[in-house]
Amino acid sequence: MMVLVTYDVNTETPEGRRRLRHVARECVNYGQRVQNSVFECLVDPAQFAKLKHSLAGIIDKERDSVRFYFLGANWKNRVEHLGSNTGYDPEGLLVT
Amino acid sequence: MMVLVTYDVNTETPEGRRRLRHVARECVNYGQRVQNSVFECLVDPAQFAKLKHSLAGIIDKERDSVRFYFLGANWKNRVEHLGSNTGYDPEGLLVT
Repeated sequence: MMVLVTYDVNTETPEGRRRLRHVARECVNYGQRVQNSVFECLVDPAQFAKLKHSLAGIIDKERDSVRFYFLGANWKNRVEHLGSNTGYDPEGLLVT
Repeated sequence: MMVLVTYDVNTETPEGRRRLRHVARECVNYGQRVQNSVFECLVDPAQFAKLKHSLAGIIDKERDSVRFYFLGANWKNRVEHLGSNTGYDPEGLLVT
């Protein structure tokens, strides 16, 4: 399933900047960065549970926010884009 | 329909910072900010076309990126969240 991960991490402190790096580093293990704090992750339910668990362990729940959007099987028809594009298709070739 | 708008605007220049403000200001007219550069917009097709057209007119297509994700009617069951939450339900009461 395709899960969109978007996050806001409070980077006012060195600790916050560390959390931000760790959130991004974790998401890279599961999917493709399409914008600074937006990842598209093609995962099965078990992988998603693991990703969610590790992100929950990284963020400061009072100051940071992570949102997961389940785009479903038909996800390719659910996305449009304007501007510069890291365009890719996780199930196919890199679109440039 | 619920459309998720995510954007990255290059803010290295004063012009870029102006574009960022204008993108956010435009999105506020159509929906709710749930993260710094993530908006949830409950719009009909005509409203979406207008939003997309105005954002296309604001951004620098070489340096900025706007992505639209169509979450469909069942969108409330397609979202999960960790951490601090501006929680709201555009079709109901503000969730705090």
